[in-house]
Amino acid sequence: MSKPVTLSEPGFSPHQLNKYASLLALGNGYMGIRASHEEAYTQQTRGMFLAGLYHRAGKDDITELVNLPDVTGVDIFLNGEPFSLLSGTLEGWQREMDFSSGELMRSLIWRASDGARFAIESRRFASAEQLPLLAMTLSITPLDGDASIALSTGIDATITNHGRQHLDETQVRVFGQHLLQGIYTTQDGHSEISVSTHCLINGEEQSCFTAKERRLMQHTHAQVKAGERLTLEKLTWVEWTTGRDVSLETWGQQGLRRLEACVAQGYQALLTQSAVNWQNWWQHRRVQVSSVNEDDQRALDFALYHLRIMTPSHDERCSIGAKGLSGEGYKGHVFWDTEVFLLPFHVFTEPAIARNLLRYRWHNLAGAREKARKNGWQGALFPWESARSGEEETPEFAAINIRTGLRQKVASAQAEHHLVADIAWAVVNYWQATGDEPFMSREGVTLLLETARFWISRTTDVNGRLEIHDVIGPDEYTEHVNNNAFTNYMAYYNVSQALYFARRYGCGDEAFIHRAEHFLQHLWLPGAQTDGILPQDDSFLSKPVIDLAMYKTKAGKQTILLDYSRAEVNEMQILKQADVVMLMYMLSELFTPVVCQANLNFYERRTIHDSSLSKAIHGIVAARCGNTHQGYQFWRDGARIDLGDDPHSCDDGIHAAATGAIWLGAIQGFAGLNVCNGELHLHPQLPEEWQKLTFPLCWQGSEITIALSQQSVHIESSSPVTLFLKGTPVTVVDKYSASLTDFISAVNGTATTHKEDE
Amino acid sequence: MSKPVTLSEPGFSPHQLNKYASLLALGNGYMGIRASHEEAYTQQTRGMFLAGLYHRAGKDDITELVNLPDVTGVDIFLNGEPFSLLSGTLEGWQREMDFSSGELMRSLIWRASDGARFAIESRRFASAEQLPLLAMTLSITPLDGDASIALSTGIDATITNHGRQHLDETQVRVFGQHLLQGIYTTQDGHSEISVSTHCLINGEEQSCFTAKERRLMQHTHAQVKAGERLTLEKLTWVEWTTGRDVSLETWGQQGLRRLEACVAQGYQALLTQSAVNWQNWWQHRRVQVSSVNEDDQRALDFALYHLRIMTPSHDERCSIGAKGLSGEGYKGHVFWDTEVFLLPFHVFTEPAIARNLLRYRWHNLAGAREKARKNGWQGALFPWESARSGEEETPEFAAINIRTGLRQKVASAQAEHHLVADIAWAVVNYWQATGDEPFMSREGVTLLLETARFWISRTTDVNGRLEIHDVIGPDEYTEHVNNNAFTNYMAYYNVSQALYFARRYGCGDEAFIHRAEHFLQHLWLPGAQTDGILPQDDSFLSKPVIDLAMYKTKAGKQTILLDYSRAEVNEMQILKQADVVMLMYMLSELFTPVVCQANLNFYERRTIHDSSLSKAIHGIVAARCGNTHQGYQFWRDGARIDLGDDPHSCDDGIHAAATGAIWLGAIQGFAGLNVCNGELHLHPQLPEEWQKLTFPLCWQGSEITIALSQQSVHIESSSPVTLFLKGTPVTVVDKYSASLTDFISAVNGTATTHKEDE
Repeated sequence: MSKPVTLSEPGFSPHQLNKYASLLALGNGYMGIRASHEEAYTQQTRGMFLAGLYHRAGKDDITELVNLPDVTGVDIFLNGEPFSLLSGTLEGWQREMDFSSGELMRSLIWRASDGARFAIESRRFASAEQLPLLAMTLSITPLDGDASIALSTGIDATITNHGRQHLDETQVRVFGQHLLQGIYTTQDGHSEISVSTHCLINGEEQSCFTAKERRLMQHTHAQVKAGERLTLEKLTWVEWTTGRDVSLETWGQQGLRRLEACVAQGYQALLTQSAVNWQNWWQHRRVQVSSVNEDDQRALDFALYHLRIMTPSHDERCSIGAKGLSGEGYKGHVFWDTEVFLLPFHVFTEPAIARNLLRYRWHNLAGAREKARKNGWQGALFPWESARSGEEETPEFAAINIRTGLRQKVASAQAEHHLVADIAWAVVNYWQATGDEPFMSREGVTLLLETARFWISRTTDVNGRLEIHDVIGPDEYTEHVNNNAFTNYMAYYNVSQALYFARRYGCGDEAFIHRAEHFLQHLWLPGAQTDGILPQDDSFLSKPVIDLAMYKTKAGKQTILLDYSRAEVNEMQILKQADVVMLMYMLSELFTPVVCQANLNFYERRTIHDSSLSKAIHGIVAARCGNTHQGYQFWRDGARIDLGDDPHSCDDGIHAAATGAIWLGAIQGFAGLNVCNGELHLHPQLPEEWQKLTFPLCWQGSEITIALSQQSVHIESSSPVTLFLKGTPVTVVDKYSASLTDFISAVNGTATTHKEDE
Repeated sequence: MSKPVTLSEPGFSPHQLNKYASLLALGNGYMGIRASHEEAYTQQTRGMFLAGLYHRAGKDDITELVNLPDVTGVDIFLNGEPFSLLSGTLEGWQREMDFSSGELMRSLIWRASDGARFAIESRRFASAEQLPLLAMTLSITPLDGDASIALSTGIDATITNHGRQHLDETQVRVFGQHLLQGIYTTQDGHSEISVSTHCLINGEEQSCFTAKERRLMQHTHAQVKAGERLTLEKLTWVEWTTGRDVSLETWGQQGLRRLEACVAQGYQALLTQSAVNWQNWWQHRRVQVSSVNEDDQRALDFALYHLRIMTPSHDERCSIGAKGLSGEGYKGHVFWDTEVFLLPFHVFTEPAIARNLLRYRWHNLAGAREKARKNGWQGALFPWESARSGEEETPEFAAINIRTGLRQKVASAQAEHHLVADIAWAVVNYWQATGDEPFMSREGVTLLLETARFWISRTTDVNGRLEIHDVIGPDEYTEHVNNNAFTNYMAYYNVSQALYFARRYGCGDEAFIHRAEHFLQHLWLPGAQTDGILPQDDSFLSKPVIDLAMYKTKAGKQTILLDYSRAEVNEMQILKQADVVMLMYMLSELFTPVVCQANLNFYERRTIHDSSLSKAIHGIVAARCGNTHQGYQFWRDGARIDLGDDPHSCDDGIHAAATGAIWLGAIQGFAGLNVCNGELHLHPQLPEEWQKLTFPLCWQGSEITIALSQQSVHIESSSPVTLFLKGTPVTVVDKYSASLTDFISAVNGTATTHKEDE
């Protein structure tokens, strides 16, 4: 495996402070730290988050991922002047994240307004080896003359989530001359966080401490000779607990002792340990591509880096937020993004993590049952937005209605129910790839039964036909419709899988089996029209069409809502993302390539792609239809959601699902990986821009490496495995190579669901 | 009366953003608004406060003056680049507060990094006529070419008190195309605040609104031709309530209607109304001085301007915070500063306001009684720090102890009891100047009796001698001492005045009279030593002396606490301010000038003047001793506490007491105004730098104007009044002039207290 590439910020611009703070964020699944500069800028939003640490700031406010006290900020004074790249002149610049080690580096030369130049270099990483550890160095070299340098840094608890305070200061203290510790408690009293930090500065310097206005700071002043280097090495240890069983004093001391053990090793040794961990990780994950477009490899490395740092693999009581741990966006809440866009990567690279993520839902079944019950349904209705408790966390209001001046209500929590089936779909996917019977016979089947019970209760009998009314599909620009195709098909899939596994494990009672069979017999599954178009819902095709060209050029920005209210958008053929295309991605075995292509063409014209979940899925469906060129364009557009030129595309965090989709597009789109009826299928069709695609894969306990070129396939497996190459079964024992032209593609969509097995 | 001067900020510096945000703050006693720039800077602390609107942000946190959502901020984009004075070049600059009208103005020419110049001018005022109104304009003229200008402004509720959140967002809404309203509720549910704002922009422009992350914003974009001016006129109406008796909707609408009435008039008409109000105000308040030092007049105008804007004359349920309404310092709490340093100005210029301020204490007697009771004493022990409820609000902790690393406890609430007598002193002062029998016979005598009861219960009987143990005097560097001279003498004064007025109004019972007499007979009043030095307390003179020169050069910064812990400071002859000097100021009739001068000399050498209350009082005592030269130096030092060169001297608000002391120094120091035994005395002795001093005075219902020169005095009075010029009674009917050399100074300190009358 060659070394993962780096991602560079090409220069300093106040416009893209937050974009790069997200793109270059540090993390390890336990904590995430935005890549804000040491020096402050008014538009720069700092952020440090712990997976699962949520809190509600006010009575009618929303539970959100707590933005913790900052430790990365350093006020730098050079000869008395505050250092800021808004003043003076930048004469050298390098800033990049090394994906191979997870280290962020900035190196610059800055000329102050009085002409004196300084070399300033900083490095940081969040340890992959010791999750609570964040390490940084900052060095400053006056180049043109002796200089007075002052640094103020410490633990800054003035940080809020945009004005919403979550933490009370419980205790701040200085130990010795270099250890600072702040202990904070969420205002509801449930969680305690200790932030311990150690600042070591080389050479002669004077330090003092202040604790004022929620800032515990060490102020250092030094005289530095020209050409000499002043270096700050700051190590921070962040712990949290919800059920402390020792005294506050003892608990605080534990963190200090662990920090001191790190201090004894120093930045470089700690970095080496963490980098070795990263190296091992990449060894079993990296997707390598030879492309005429260099940034394709960068997009893949970027995606996998973020897929790692966003994922709380250490704790099955939390899942992955829609922005990972890279920003405050979506309040850190967990959506269907996790099961549909992120879980497949883990299923095929480290299934134990996928299992954890599914167990997160299983742990939260009580809340889902309660939500169903409260709304008059049975089974489990998972919250549209979820935090740690599994309760519904969707905000009540979204943007201002341009007609009334009032904030518009968010309907997703009330009606966007497809999430329930998406979770069931993920459970089956996990089981198919792993054959994990212990999980499936307990958590898996429970999730399937409870979600199925929800759907069975969710129907409306219309003259003997079961319909599903008043839902929102993935396309959130079309609300409160009946018989949304995505929802109905997925509900059918959900119940059929539940029935299959209930029988397999003998755990569904007769009443359930009877009701499930009735549901499957009578649920209305709208068919395609004669032109092959599957109606998105009962009313969609009768709505007027408008020209969306202007809005499509600004995809992702929801500019349509500046011209129309949500109610008005709802009454036109305007899609945020295409439900039917999504359906054809998820249940690909039900639809032929011809039908898929027809629906792709039809709905894409009506789709703004205002959802970050949209384009990548279009790309996979296009690739599966054999339209690799179109698929590649969509894939590259998807990769540009975060990595593109828009300076504000990911200010409040990267799009977690979009990073998952970069992997999905390469593996499910161009390598053509698909699981049909429990069988692993590959239909490789690389874009003409790609010469080679190599990736590792876990399948039923085997570790497989697949290398594809335009003409050939080479597979290695740790144990014998059978898979289907373009529909032809192939058994790999150790190594296997073939020319792809030897295979005539089998027709897609002939595989069957379990329902048809029965 | 000539027009009050202006205060200018000499240039832009990121170092002094907060100093000038305090110095040039707007206000009207109802609200205070820091003079932050429209554009943001990382170190710039915005602030808008309403008198009396306090809240506690967390369980163990401190009640503080709530920093409200901001309306003065405007994000300005010129040709796509954010406007900031840290970038580009400043080619013209003027910024000043016009004390005559209360209008703040900034006018500048800025060259962007691409060379294009812009003229930017902004103006603001808080209406003196309509208290909830804040008005501002911002105009931008591209000078070198057509420009695209974008402005984002609105109501920004991301503002916190350094990370402490007080407000929940209850409702945000846009009305029509220009009216924005946010309604906020303190998290305890007690107070509701409505902020309504209207943005009018001239010419062709496009606007849209966003409500996200606690910011309700109007975004405007315009193309402006070279030489043409884009103007934003923004009017804001801020109301609050603690007991709303109409629906939220109706209450919100009231604010909107009032705002709309202002909008109909426009900035200029509203300014004119407010300026007329200011003109009338100055007419009856302004102190005019002809000095060789021009900034003496500026200091006086500055002081009076702030004395007005900090004072909630509309509401006797709140008083004046130690930083007025100009910043978050001291959490907006009310200290003895109000009664001792601020009240005299009101007593002698608008006694009704002084009465309100005393009634604030009277309203809060319940809390003071409760505090006394809880601590095992009787009567009223007023809280050392007070907010709206009158409960004790002193923070538990101050700065980090440099020895232990723990935050040091604040002892003032436990032991700094002289405040009780200070309030009694202020009550008597008010009565002497006004003869307000209705007040004195009800609130006044009640305050005197309850405070006296406290002192009577506060003593310790040591072999028949009553002592007062374990107190802190005004000098907070000396804690937990016995028989603090200031405290004992003031307690004696308190009880003697209570006894006098109890008899006068026949309202003290026999038991009280008996106990008061016993107290006065047995209270230990330490006398002067043979060298004339009055010991500050029982132990002070036995403590070691250290060289304070280094600390005195940094007076006000408490640098001694960087070298010594509070406990260590306590064990040395180190004064933050001199108690004995303070005592000689407050009870001047008890001490001869010779004794005063000896104590001034002795204690000043031991005083760092780390308290902003220190130097001005030294100045008055020096002047009263005839040492005008020294008095003037102290007075000027006092004026420089806020107005001096230290760029951070008043970052978190101006020093309210120090502004009061600027007036005190001129009137009580150099005009020599003193009230002895209910008689008005003048001992004019202008510093040699002053040619003339003219000021108005209210005395017993008469409006008097006094004009002093080095040689002469000229007095006018609205009704016949008798006063003492250098000890000689003079009756003024209409007008009176005399040469000062005609008077031989009577000896100070021969007047008596009421005690001796009895």
